[in-house]
Amino acid sequence: MRWLTFEQGGAQSYGYLTSDGNGVVNVGGRSDLPDLKAAIAAGIVDGSAPYGDVADLELAAVTYLPTIPNPEKILCVGLNYRAHQEETGRGGEAYPTIFVRFAAAQVGHRQPMVRPRESETLDFEGEIAMIIGKSGRRIKRQDAMDHVAGFGIYNDGSVREYQRQTSQFTAGKNFAGTGPFGPWMMTLDEVGDLDEMEITTRLNGEVMQNAKAGLLVFGFAELIEYTSTFLDLVPGDVIVTGTPAGVGAARTPPVFMDEGDVIEVEVKPIGTLSNPVIKG
Amino acid sequence: MRWLTFEQGGAQSYGYLTSDGNGVVNVGGRSDLPDLKAAIAAGIVDGSAPYGDVADLELAAVTYLPTIPNPEKILCVGLNYRAHQEETGRGGEAYPTIFVRFAAAQVGHRQPMVRPRESETLDFEGEIAMIIGKSGRRIKRQDAMDHVAGFGIYNDGSVREYQRQTSQFTAGKNFAGTGPFGPWMMTLDEVGDLDEMEITTRLNGEVMQNAKAGLLVFGFAELIEYTSTFLDLVPGDVIVTGTPAGVGAARTPPVFMDEGDVIEVEVKPIGTLSNPVIKG
Repeated sequence: MRWLTFEQGGAQSYGYLTSDGNGVVNVGGRSDLPDLKAAIAAGIVDGSAPYGDVADLELAAVTYLPTIPNPEKILCVGLNYRAHQEETGRGGEAYPTIFVRFAAAQVGHRQPMVRPRESETLDFEGEIAMIIGKSGRRIKRQDAMDHVAGFGIYNDGSVREYQRQTSQFTAGKNFAGTGPFGPWMMTLDEVGDLDEMEITTRLNGEVMQNAKAGLLVFGFAELIEYTSTFLDLVPGDVIVTGTPAGVGAARTPPVFMDEGDVIEVEVKPIGTLSNPVIKG
Repeated sequence: MRWLTFEQGGAQSYGYLTSDGNGVVNVGGRSDLPDLKAAIAAGIVDGSAPYGDVADLELAAVTYLPTIPNPEKILCVGLNYRAHQEETGRGGEAYPTIFVRFAAAQVGHRQPMVRPRESETLDFEGEIAMIIGKSGRRIKRQDAMDHVAGFGIYNDGSVREYQRQTSQFTAGKNFAGTGPFGPWMMTLDEVGDLDEMEITTRLNGEVMQNAKAGLLVFGFAELIEYTSTFLDLVPGDVIVTGTPAGVGAARTPPVFMDEGDVIEVEVKPIGTLSNPVIKG
């Protein structure tokens, strides 16, 4: 199933795609569970269609919001593909490099990504987002996938100038409007071979990044094991698993985004997250 | 006024101290505003006593919870006292070093601070917490204090071994039970000269850290100006402003905390945050 969060009559709702992929079952209009995070926690977000397969809305008419608009935690993994470590000259530690994004910086599919007025260095980072389905602390690697609800698509937009102002990435990773997350999450049962998930990032149609998840330095289960060492993972938490080589800042000359650009992150078999860029 | 969050009959409530300092007016039991964050957003947390000065509860009987249990953002400032930069051999950049703590790692006054089973390197960091009262983006330094509700006390507990595993501090700063925040916040009008606020950290009664806020490298207004460059600050957001010299890891030999210890952070004129340490 593909679950999504969207705007409906000026309010936030959520639901899932019908089997033909053209319609949306509006679960938010039928359930007391207030949002997709609550639906995941309640255990209804799995391979089943809890409210049937008849569309309430045409998908084409939907205004998308971030897949999980309000995660308790967004844990991002830096330097998690070898070729990206090489192009940045960083990474290689024995542990995952974890930084944090705030939900307030997120936007949905097709919503504008914002190049801030303060800097010309807005960069893309196409990534696979892992969404937690079941709480746990000190989860062992072999049990980790039992805690996953599904996978989505994230663009870990980075204002490089701010990212490099100090040792900590926080400022450069948290400008408002720099975190596209969408269009939906695919439940774990439908994803198939996790290592075969394939990220392709396109800027104005040109391929900038391409890699399969099998190349992750720290794989999905290891990331759950490590991050749950320190905090409980809870339903709706998002682990943004890292970007492949090809980011704009590592190119010669560097490629940064500006108004008028369109940035797309495709993750097979999940779908494509696309955002126009504006200046704000 | 001193506002606090506490447990009342098994549920969370909040309120303020009576003028004699011995009682608590239980605002959560009288208002529709669900928590202290909402009360701040509603504008009732200022120099006034919106529900009078008659105690509903004895302060001595109260179970404290983190002052703001659910901030949207906890922005921590690293390396913000010169003497602490010197003892760690880090810092000195032209911008504040910002990292993130999650609310899930917080505990209240007198609740146990947890030394995790994974590491013997739990360290203290006494800090002044600034609590945002009014939303804003791109706030100018000269307007910054209009956005502050008040100040509280934070112990930015750090598992040094994990903090140093990679370039990013996240893991070492987010173990469950390592973020004491309390006992209350003092509204801005009562604090007096902000530069005269004085942090004293005591481990089992022995003074480990002592400094006045006037020594901050990036002052309160500058921190608001910088962090609001990238995201809206909103009511209840917490900026944990940095720790002075004297942390355990920088001592010879290093001093770390373990079960049986009691760690206290006093900030004059606000009060004292005290926590026993357990192993968990």
